Amino acid sequence: MEAVFRHIEGGVCAPQGFRAAGAACGIKSGSDSKDIALIVSDVMCDAAAVYTTNKVKGAPLDVTKKNIEDGRAQAIICNSGNANTCAPGGKKLALQTCEIAAEALGIGKNDIIVCSTGVIGQKLDIEPFKKGVPVLTDMLSYRGSDDAAEAIMTTDTIPKTIAVEFELGGRVCRIGGIAKGSGMINPNMATMLSFITTDTDISSDMLEKALKAAADVSFNQICVDGDTSTNDMVAVLASGEAGNGRITEEGADFDMFADALLEVTVYLAKKLARDGEGASKLIECNVKGAPDRTAAQKISKTVISSNLLKAAMFGEDANWGRVLCAVGYTEGDFRTDNIDVTMSSAKGSVYVCQGSSHREYSEEKASEILSEENITIDIDMNQGSACASAWGCDLTYDYVRINGDYRS
Amino acid sequence: MEAVFRHIEGGVCAPQGFRAAGAACGIKSGSDSKDIALIVSDVMCDAAAVYTTNKVKGAPLDVTKKNIEDGRAQAIICNSGNANTCAPGGKKLALQTCEIAAEALGIGKNDIIVCSTGVIGQKLDIEPFKKGVPVLTDMLSYRGSDDAAEAIMTTDTIPKTIAVEFELGGRVCRIGGIAKGSGMINPNMATMLSFITTDTDISSDMLEKALKAAADVSFNQICVDGDTSTNDMVAVLASGEAGNGRITEEGADFDMFADALLEVTVYLAKKLARDGEGASKLIECNVKGAPDRTAAQKISKTVISSNLLKAAMFGEDANWGRVLCAVGYTEGDFRTDNIDVTMSSAKGSVYVCQGSSHREYSEEKASEILSEENITIDIDMNQGSACASAWGCDLTYDYVRINGDYRS
Repeated sequence: MEAVFRHIEGGVCAPQGFRAAGAACGIKSGSDSKDIALIVSDVMCDAAAVYTTNKVKGAPLDVTKKNIEDGRAQAIICNSGNANTCAPGGKKLALQTCEIAAEALGIGKNDIIVCSTGVIGQKLDIEPFKKGVPVLTDMLSYRGSDDAAEAIMTTDTIPKTIAVEFELGGRVCRIGGIAKGSGMINPNMATMLSFITTDTDISSDMLEKALKAAADVSFNQICVDGDTSTNDMVAVLASGEAGNGRITEEGADFDMFADALLEVTVYLAKKLARDGEGASKLIECNVKGAPDRTAAQKISKTVISSNLLKAAMFGEDANWGRVLCAVGYTEGDFRTDNIDVTMSSAKGSVYVCQGSSHREYSEEKASEILSEENITIDIDMNQGSACASAWGCDLTYDYVRINGDYRS
Repeated sequence: MEAVFRHIEGGVCAPQGFRAAGAACGIKSGSDSKDIALIVSDVMCDAAAVYTTNKVKGAPLDVTKKNIEDGRAQAIICNSGNANTCAPGGKKLALQTCEIAAEALGIGKNDIIVCSTGVIGQKLDIEPFKKGVPVLTDMLSYRGSDDAAEAIMTTDTIPKTIAVEFELGGRVCRIGGIAKGSGMINPNMATMLSFITTDTDISSDMLEKALKAAADVSFNQICVDGDTSTNDMVAVLASGEAGNGRITEEGADFDMFADALLEVTVYLAKKLARDGEGASKLIECNVKGAPDRTAAQKISKTVISSNLLKAAMFGEDANWGRVLCAVGYTEGDFRTDNIDVTMSSAKGSVYVCQGSSHREYSEEKASEILSEENITIDIDMNQGSACASAWGCDLTYDYVRINGDYRS
């Protein structure tokens, strides 16, 4: 991160002109948990989104893609508790949801980003939207981000939220974001969603460019269990209310915005990894000295995705053999004969492998270091100048409990 | 499987002219567990092997590759307890091991297949070989397969062994095999090894062709945790003692041999999957109706590799959403809009997903079916005629315990 951005309060409502709300509308049956979130801009926004690469896609994704084809949107509606995926009438329901929201908000039905997360294979009912959305509309508030962040959660244990501010041409710009991750609702897989707002004036093309670049090194570099959901989506709305000179091409302003967006997405990605199902630790893997950035990204991602390494981190064991093993089975063209590995935390650092071979270290010290909640694994490939990072979590008894015994 | 092969006793010693032994030689320190295995043919054999794709490779693999470049070998020596990987002087030690074995057996030092499995990053000492190999040589027996099978185990809970017989041109031929899998020794990753013997007369080229084809749809279609070891190897020795007409090209004889070899490798692969670390169930995934065999193989392998599906199987939950999710994130070009899924065991069968959508079924019946130890997931992609299978195991508390808490 080159620039340092000031973190502020307010989440997706920190940028000017965004209201949000979240409430329990009856989708999560027998529960008073919030299950519909609404995020609305006072004015039409430039919009961009990135989606899951899973070939099995939630019905709302097609509708959202079509709605933002013109690069414009004004609101986001997202329900939790049902993914509206592999279920009859899914697309029709997503379209109906947009109609209901459009009518309540007095905006066009094609200017809405629609998302779902939760159970797959079960019919999502329209009634909770019919009753809930008008109520939610009345609740919309310029301080409503936390309610929205809560309403998109499934088995997340904490809401994830951030906002930063920075200057562009003398005007203060803000980016706010919320995310939900690695939760699972009976009987479904994890879904990662993030909604980002900004008052920066930026064209949808440049917004998409910045979003793709940021997602590539943040959300796409985390792994909880290697399963890619059917419903993943990151969407960003840019209202232009900050009044900066509209960004329509690359240059210093675009770079500043892209860096700020990266700060937001990396922050949220790390929160998602730390709140992985059953996780007790956040594992950051930094690779340097790689021949190119793709290799660095793939190596770091493969290491934090290794079940054996994740279990070793749970066991607080400096098992560098598993790090080398995972580096070795990473796809790509690079050498593995001169790798250095260091493991660190707030309690210090231990240099465990040098030149791809064993190095003497204190097991006691290593265990103490790995007893911390935030662990960093630094890998030097010693063959180039490219670097990258990835984030994951440990593999715990609770992961198995949550995903195996959820009925109990 | 087209032909049916008669299963016989004897493991790698079932084919004529093979002796084997296994003994505790002090590599697994403070333990009287067997840790060196020797398999020897009375005559020079045609030989072939396939190796791990991991870029970080155990030192013995290079030595073995070089030794069988000429398609010939007469003996296999394998130690457990230390992988001789990422450790100083590894290659020299593997060469010395061959020299010691060659002298004790009175054969050429370049006619030996050498393997190691166990801890990585720790120096392997030559002393246990110096003392142990002469003793092992004296112990060699035409009924020694079980001792060898035991001596290659790490955290395997049971030895894996098989032998089959079949006829070629009026002569009885036999193939025998042993394997070790998914075990882990402090502090190492799992390694999969299999040694196969046959008295069939077959050229090393055709042997390699049959081995690659068989490994591709057996050992390469199993997954315990997605981690690919540094030391995986499958090696086969063919003595020609059966006296069949030497197989030097494709044809009916080659097909019969290849089918028999496939029977052996699939049997061993399933045993490895079932004995995955902490596993309580064997999961077989059969894909049919795929557009091509590669897609069918990748889909079945991806499904049995999904942590979420593995945890659901442990929880005995017919969570077909996770099956569709894994199909969807499989790499390749195929449609996902008309997938049928059935789950079965000895207790019956339940049709859980039709046309990629929910289908009514009894949850009670499904739980009963999934309470069995051997579970089959049948997936019909409904778009072609290709099929393939893959085998895995469930993800359990014991997996986390074995790989996280092994110090305790």
